[in-house]
Amino acid sequence: MDWQATRRGETIAALPDRQDAHLVFIGRLRTPFASRDQCPRRGDPESGPICHVEVDATWWPALAGVEACAYLDLLYWMNLARRDLLTQSPKSSGQILGTFALRSPVRPNPIALSRVRLIGVEEGALRVRGLDCVDGTPLLDIKPNRCPQAGAGTEHDHGRT
Amino acid sequence: MDWQATRRGETIAALPDRQDAHLVFIGRLRTPFASRDQCPRRGDPESGPICHVEVDATWWPALAGVEACAYLDLLYWMNLARRDLLTQSPKSSGQILGTFALRSPVRPNPIALSRVRLIGVEEGALRVRGLDCVDGTPLLDIKPNRCPQAGAGTEHDHGRT
Repeated sequence: MDWQATRRGETIAALPDRQDAHLVFIGRLRTPFASRDQCPRRGDPESGPICHVEVDATWWPALAGVEACAYLDLLYWMNLARRDLLTQSPKSSGQILGTFALRSPVRPNPIALSRVRLIGVEEGALRVRGLDCVDGTPLLDIKPNRCPQAGAGTEHDHGRT
Repeated sequence: MDWQATRRGETIAALPDRQDAHLVFIGRLRTPFASRDQCPRRGDPESGPICHVEVDATWWPALAGVEACAYLDLLYWMNLARRDLLTQSPKSSGQILGTFALRSPVRPNPIALSRVRLIGVEEGALRVRGLDCVDGTPLLDIKPNRCPQAGAGTEHDHGRT
């Protein structure tokens, strides 16, 4: 499957020749999906397979307290995705929609966001359900989830102010 | 308020000297909050003030279809935040917690995530409720929200596969 090719009706942007900020990968996601065509269309935090979030040793102290969060938001980098599509045709629908009306990995900043259920905490790693990405995908961030009924309003859900 | 200073019990990482990926800012968030101490601790998608999401003209076609999304996830760049705290003491609690157990803007990749309610769509801009950030904050991404009861299961909620 050539998911990098454009499809009928898709439009392409001239990407700005700028680097406005940089990211540091903080770990890797370990999933049972060896290639993109094995990935589910959407992760399932309740009945999806158990995956591992491997955190680089530098950041292990930053996991303190995460065990109290029933659900987490994981941000990760879709390093295989092109960044220049303005409109896209999801295979499953045939519609043409703007990139910002889709959760496709193809977007100007290919940051994926998955709400996962926290199953367990090990030294430097988390066991979660709900991931949808290829094994080895770079990790960017871990946050307590704030969906209205899941994980909201806990004492850990503070900003810094 | 010196929110860049460390507080008792906070610990600092030696940040990796790497740039693993780069971001392109795609617009700006316009809020009534002129400085960090005016920002609410958490945005309110139902009764917070109306804010404007200004999208750069390059990306206007990527907004097609976004009007069908009742709630959106906005990703934006906390350009004022330090990136090296492993543990933090939120002012509101006095506890020491790991960065990944908090939604603080201070984190290795300072990408903020807010669930906002879409109020209206103009040419190249969205009106939303639920933002908590300083006026002028750089925008990274707009996605349909997938919280279980809000915005889930719509026909636009597809991946690219």
